[in-house]
Amino acid sequence: MSHQGGTQANIGVVGLAVMGSNLARNLASREGNTVAIYNRSPQKTRDLVDEHPEAGFVASESIEDFAASLSKPRTALIMVKAGAGTDAVIDQLVAVFEPGDIIVDGGNALFTDTIRREKAIRETGINFVGAGISGGEEGALLGPSIMPGGSAESWETLGPILRSIAAVAEGEPCVTHVGTDGAGHFVKMIHNGIEYADMQLIAEAYDLIRRGTGKSPAEIAEVFAAWNKGELESYLIEITAEVLRQVDAKTGRPLVDVIVDEAGAKGTGAWTVQTALDLGIPVSGIAEAVFARSLSSKPAQRKAASDLPGPSESWQVTDADAFIEDVRLALYASKIIAYSQGFDEIVAGAEEYDWDIKKGAIAKIWRGGCIIRAQFLNRITEAYDADPRLVALVTAPYFRDAVTKAQAAWRRVVTAAAQAGIPSPAFSSSLAYYDGLRADRLPAALVQGQRDFFGAHTYKRIDGPGAFHTLWSGDRSEIEAVDTH
Amino acid sequence: MSHQGGTQANIGVVGLAVMGSNLARNLASREGNTVAIYNRSPQKTRDLVDEHPEAGFVASESIEDFAASLSKPRTALIMVKAGAGTDAVIDQLVAVFEPGDIIVDGGNALFTDTIRREKAIRETGINFVGAGISGGEEGALLGPSIMPGGSAESWETLGPILRSIAAVAEGEPCVTHVGTDGAGHFVKMIHNGIEYADMQLIAEAYDLIRRGTGKSPAEIAEVFAAWNKGELESYLIEITAEVLRQVDAKTGRPLVDVIVDEAGAKGTGAWTVQTALDLGIPVSGIAEAVFARSLSSKPAQRKAASDLPGPSESWQVTDADAFIEDVRLALYASKIIAYSQGFDEIVAGAEEYDWDIKKGAIAKIWRGGCIIRAQFLNRITEAYDADPRLVALVTAPYFRDAVTKAQAAWRRVVTAAAQAGIPSPAFSSSLAYYDGLRADRLPAALVQGQRDFFGAHTYKRIDGPGAFHTLWSGDRSEIEAVDTH
Repeated sequence: MSHQGGTQANIGVVGLAVMGSNLARNLASREGNTVAIYNRSPQKTRDLVDEHPEAGFVASESIEDFAASLSKPRTALIMVKAGAGTDAVIDQLVAVFEPGDIIVDGGNALFTDTIRREKAIRETGINFVGAGISGGEEGALLGPSIMPGGSAESWETLGPILRSIAAVAEGEPCVTHVGTDGAGHFVKMIHNGIEYADMQLIAEAYDLIRRGTGKSPAEIAEVFAAWNKGELESYLIEITAEVLRQVDAKTGRPLVDVIVDEAGAKGTGAWTVQTALDLGIPVSGIAEAVFARSLSSKPAQRKAASDLPGPSESWQVTDADAFIEDVRLALYASKIIAYSQGFDEIVAGAEEYDWDIKKGAIAKIWRGGCIIRAQFLNRITEAYDADPRLVALVTAPYFRDAVTKAQAAWRRVVTAAAQAGIPSPAFSSSLAYYDGLRADRLPAALVQGQRDFFGAHTYKRIDGPGAFHTLWSGDRSEIEAVDTH
Repeated sequence: MSHQGGTQANIGVVGLAVMGSNLARNLASREGNTVAIYNRSPQKTRDLVDEHPEAGFVASESIEDFAASLSKPRTALIMVKAGAGTDAVIDQLVAVFEPGDIIVDGGNALFTDTIRREKAIRETGINFVGAGISGGEEGALLGPSIMPGGSAESWETLGPILRSIAAVAEGEPCVTHVGTDGAGHFVKMIHNGIEYADMQLIAEAYDLIRRGTGKSPAEIAEVFAAWNKGELESYLIEITAEVLRQVDAKTGRPLVDVIVDEAGAKGTGAWTVQTALDLGIPVSGIAEAVFARSLSSKPAQRKAASDLPGPSESWQVTDADAFIEDVRLALYASKIIAYSQGFDEIVAGAEEYDWDIKKGAIAKIWRGGCIIRAQFLNRITEAYDADPRLVALVTAPYFRDAVTKAQAAWRRVVTAAAQAGIPSPAFSSSLAYYDGLRADRLPAALVQGQRDFFGAHTYKRIDGPGAFHTLWSGDRSEIEAVDTH
């Protein structure tokens, strides 16, 4: 079963679990591609060859044979679990590849690991590319959204291959060269962070409608299906309707009522928030979504707190249709804030790591294949095309109009949630962020006063340059602080 | 000016900037202590000796002399800026110290750096202790709150010295052996995170009262001064009154109106949130406080967003006194949530890093010397003394009563803020957390359904063990998932 000496593949895949297998099959299905495959345990390789003879895989059972089966520049896509396994496979490939060859890590690596790896491998003359791939198993097989980093040189070879397998949205393949070294994995991380916020907002919308109107999950599925025909049109809204519609065969109850209400997480949302904190970017919507999942997964605490009191009066909205429309508007406005925060983080990351990231192009490649795919992303592309230096997405004309139309409803929804005792951390946090961003004066001035009082951290004055300190434990006169840095 | 051969100091201080100088003076002022001092630039050492002859410092101009001036076990407190400088000074001391000697890092090191350093130095037989020290310049001189980690052996020597200089609260010195290696710096980090939340909550309370009642900063200072006589009694409430009372000499305006409303940060709040994300602990109040500061410090975004619309009607409360009391209750309830979240992080950190941290003892040593010192901390000690395995602070009887009394007011305040367009991210996030914690069912079940749909992440069922997956793109039947881990 070792590869035929004469057959040369233009792309290889290492790691044949479900994502790797599906990407290999996707690659093999596109004209012009011959796909080499290798897996640590050879049985998986044999099985894939047997199950998919139509793919014409060039299979190898050693890394040396795998390398020999690839035409130059050799191009290998690694699809193994992120972490130490990735380093091991990279080391194996580096040992058998040559300068000019290309190693692509398609796993969910932390972008700083990708930066580290790219730097180390660059010295060998081999190109290392971290590529974010979104779309799950089905996307891998039929067309994912792909976010490659790495060098411009590697993109020349990789571009046509990745374009051949990517999802297509409005005629354009959902892949672009995001930037150098870790830029691709960075942008994939932000994608996932936004996905957390989007999902939490949808969950809050569902919860509010259910508790406020008494509608059943199946009825609320119809609400989401209707929303999916308007400005909220997106994959997540679509599948929410599908999930809510699902009836559990065993009990006859709505499936959503049978599922344990503890949400899991695989870490990329937390990375997004941790990185934002390093970059000084407020991504409160994403943070609240990550925290909502971790709170849900604390059964002992929730049990101990279950008899803490809520509002004394029960709550039911009087006009269900009007309330549902309010929730729709609140969801849309909050979603705009989540994307605005996510793109702020992209801008800050690009500045910090010296990446030339085209924001409009990122929004474009998210229109298909990935989890947050949505019509709405065209509006983001348009906003950045119209003004590449846009300082905050929410201030672009289209989004400004949207929040202007939504804000009264948004306030009513946050008010209803607070009064009814329904947890809406992402809705309320997004509104608070919006009101903070547009505030003429923030009480941050008081915080600066406190910091100067207890720590002599100094403050700036609105009427001139310099930094100042009040002698709080002295005569309370003000002195100009000497910059000691 | 090198030290007298015969004089032996029982404690030395390395690094004589303001915190180091003040700690050295504090140490020298206590009976039984003779204090050796050393600074990289000798002029600072000479100046301190000249300015404070009463201290009887044993001064050295070389690290060798400094080591020779200390009685055994040699004990040195490093007070230099956290980071590479700390490593350099540690290396110098390790070169001249002997097994059994003690090196204390009193700076604001990240606890994982402290763990790393302790591990490396342990091999030399020298004790390394990371000690969090809170209280600013004045606390350093008169009595800080001290949170030492490190070995039990080092605590035998260090304990009496640190007890001699710590703040005293209700007769007890504000210092305890927190736990091994990085435990001290970890707990100091949480202290700072809680401090961020506390300050943001106070700032929101001030802002709401000012905008809702039209009262002046001086009038609001009186509100805070009155609050400081009740259950909110604390250093931060006290200094808030002082800051709000302050009139700018140059303009005659309230100082708080002259200070630029952009709050700075030195990173420990962000560390607290980043660590919480690693530990899976929702610290939403702290995160919102950190984000509120970073949002405030984005003048270009704020300018671009300043004409985004707010509520159409202007807002003024009808009963100022009633509203102020509502805000007081909302502040107290939100503060309880911030502490509850902070202590959750302490519990999770202790478990992760195998520290035997006594929660009640931590609350006790925060009663004096440090920035978050407050009466309120006695209630936390009592709660953990009564039930060391308490799963969430907010569920302890005292705090349960407090939020029960506060929650209606809390809801009114969050409602008022949302309706009036006043940003209250920490108030609203705390309430959403409270409502999430006590919820019978969370929409996290829908999130799990979505995750199963797009990523086959599986879900648990409420009616039995196991993990399940619905064949969403198949016949939508449910299968039991095989655990492949």
